[in-house]
Amino acid sequence: MPAVPLYELQMIGTAVFAVTGVLAVNRRGLDVFGAVVLGGVTSLGGGTIRDLVIAAPVFWLTDLNYVWVALAAALIAFFASRSFVSTYTLLLYLDGLGTALFAVVATEKVLGLGLSPVVAVMMGVLTSIGGGLVRDVLAGRPTLLMSRDIYATPVLIGCTLYVVLRNLGAHHQPVGLAAGTLIFGIRAAAIHWHIEMPRWLTSDHDASRT
Amino acid sequence: MPAVPLYELQMIGTAVFAVTGVLAVNRRGLDVFGAVVLGGVTSLGGGTIRDLVIAAPVFWLTDLNYVWVALAAALIAFFASRSFVSTYTLLLYLDGLGTALFAVVATEKVLGLGLSPVVAVMMGVLTSIGGGLVRDVLAGRPTLLMSRDIYATPVLIGCTLYVVLRNLGAHHQPVGLAAGTLIFGIRAAAIHWHIEMPRWLTSDHDASRT
Amino acid sequence: MPAVPLYELQMIGTAVFAVTGVLAVNRRGLDVFGAVVLGGVTSLGGGTIRDLVIAAPVFWLTDLNYVWVALAAALIAFFASRSFVSTYTLLLYLDGLGTALFAVVATEKVLGLGLSPVVAVMMGVLTSIGGGLVRDVLAGRPTLLMSRDIYATPVLIGCTLYVVLRNLGAHHQPVGLAAGTLIFGIRAAAIHWHIEMPRWLTSDHDASRT
Repeated sequence: MPAVPLYELQMIGTAVFAVTGVLAVNRRGLDVFGAVVLGGVTSLGGGTIRDLVIAAPVFWLTDLNYVWVALAAALIAFFASRSFVSTYTLLLYLDGLGTALFAVVATEKVLGLGLSPVVAVMMGVLTSIGGGLVRDVLAGRPTLLMSRDIYATPVLIGCTLYVVLRNLGAHHQPVGLAAGTLIFGIRAAAIHWHIEMPRWLTSDHDASRT
Repeated sequence: MPAVPLYELQMIGTAVFAVTGVLAVNRRGLDVFGAVVLGGVTSLGGGTIRDLVIAAPVFWLTDLNYVWVALAAALIAFFASRSFVSTYTLLLYLDGLGTALFAVVATEKVLGLGLSPVVAVMMGVLTSIGGGLVRDVLAGRPTLLMSRDIYATPVLIGCTLYVVLRNLGAHHQPVGLAAGTLIFGIRAAAIHWHIEMPRWLTSDHDASRT
Repeated sequence: MPAVPLYELQMIGTAVFAVTGVLAVNRRGLDVFGAVVLGGVTSLGGGTIRDLVIAAPVFWLTDLNYVWVALAAALIAFFASRSFVSTYTLLLYLDGLGTALFAVVATEKVLGLGLSPVVAVMMGVLTSIGGGLVRDVLAGRPTLLMSRDIYATPVLIGCTLYVVLRNLGAHHQPVGLAAGTLIFGIRAAAIHWHIEMPRWLTSDHDASRT
């Protein structure tokens, strides 16, 4: 099996997250500085919180390429946002790819530090959704926790599969590919067929009676 | 004096915070994943921020029982929320118990690391209210800082009493019991008689003129 | 060149940020505890996040004067808020001074730890605006990222100038004075002439069409 160009993939994930971060809030009259901060937070925020919690050095401190890529992508997204709007659905899929990638890389990173598989799964989920959560809070938008989107659930499933297979002794590359494909596959299906969390897993019925 | 079953009490506090965290936002149409995250943030968030600030290892990384208890309690609260609604007042009291417990344990932990009594009081307050603050921010609700509830003030008083008595040489067990009882007592009185912060300690009069 | 009384200046900056933090949210009916927390978060929050990210000890843990000054200033602001209202514009300028000061000190601190100039600029900006961001999130207000105020841009410019001149070998005192003056000068001009970010650097046009 040939080596996966993981580093390049992560840079693409960083860029995609920065772009979606800017586009998600672009209508609200923010200026270029706000856009760059929100794009940067979206792509670097989840991993930053993860590294703080597991007491690892914050990943972009020692490799500024992450910062440059996020910065450039956010700037491009800000100034070219009109052209992006027509390709919004494409972006949803790219965002799903970034999510899958970040989740798998984070899970492996935490396992590699000798921490518990449970922590690895938690950090996989945190890394892939944490940046978006902080962005939404700073931008005053409802966070994805308040929606019925199938967004974090595939990450939870994929990361769990990852730690189970790794514990059984499998090599990180095929397992990563399998888990990442699973995460992206479920997310892509949810985007394509507009699938939401089923009613019995949602408290919507309460809301409607209020 | 017999040993206080501190560990068991902390697990109960963790469960109670997770339950109240889920119930506080349950009407807003969130799904089971969001509920579990918000419950987990409520019960583990304050202590996590505390440990980051004082540069201690995050407490649930080394004892996953906290995570399991929070997870189970949040799930139960999500699916059984209808039955909980009728016991909402009971939950307020349980939440007050959890607050008192977390505040005292955190204060002792910080003192035990040789940090200043002032920092110990600050971290006692942060631990008991920090999780709820993050939950409200993620759920898009007004935080308790914006209300006149008597919630954090008893914690401030109890933790101050704790560090004063400890500095005078008293043993941590009777002092913890006294401070915890004081915190819970004031909070319980505020719940029972619907006491709010007095007007001269609130800036409401300004708001009414706007 | 005589020594700049940096420590005293920082205490003044801490006090000013605590006062503006309280006044910014004072109309919303918060009580004295909420006011003190929001004032403290505004003045200590940015530097706290900075220290967490660069893995330095949190600055106020080892020098509680920061805490006492923030606490006292927040209390005074809360009880004397009526007198402050008439001097609101003065406060904007003082806030600009605090911003300039915190930015320069943070940039030098990060450079002194041997970290990259890029990180130093990022942390300069984070330190001067981070506390206000957290305050606004906790108070449920729109963050400055969502406005067209010229607030963070001068910090970005000033901190960049600072690291460039420092890299050319200049001494930190004249460079700090120059960068701080530049930051404050631009901010003061923006306050005085009500300058906002130009339209081509804002996405307002999109918002108006929605």
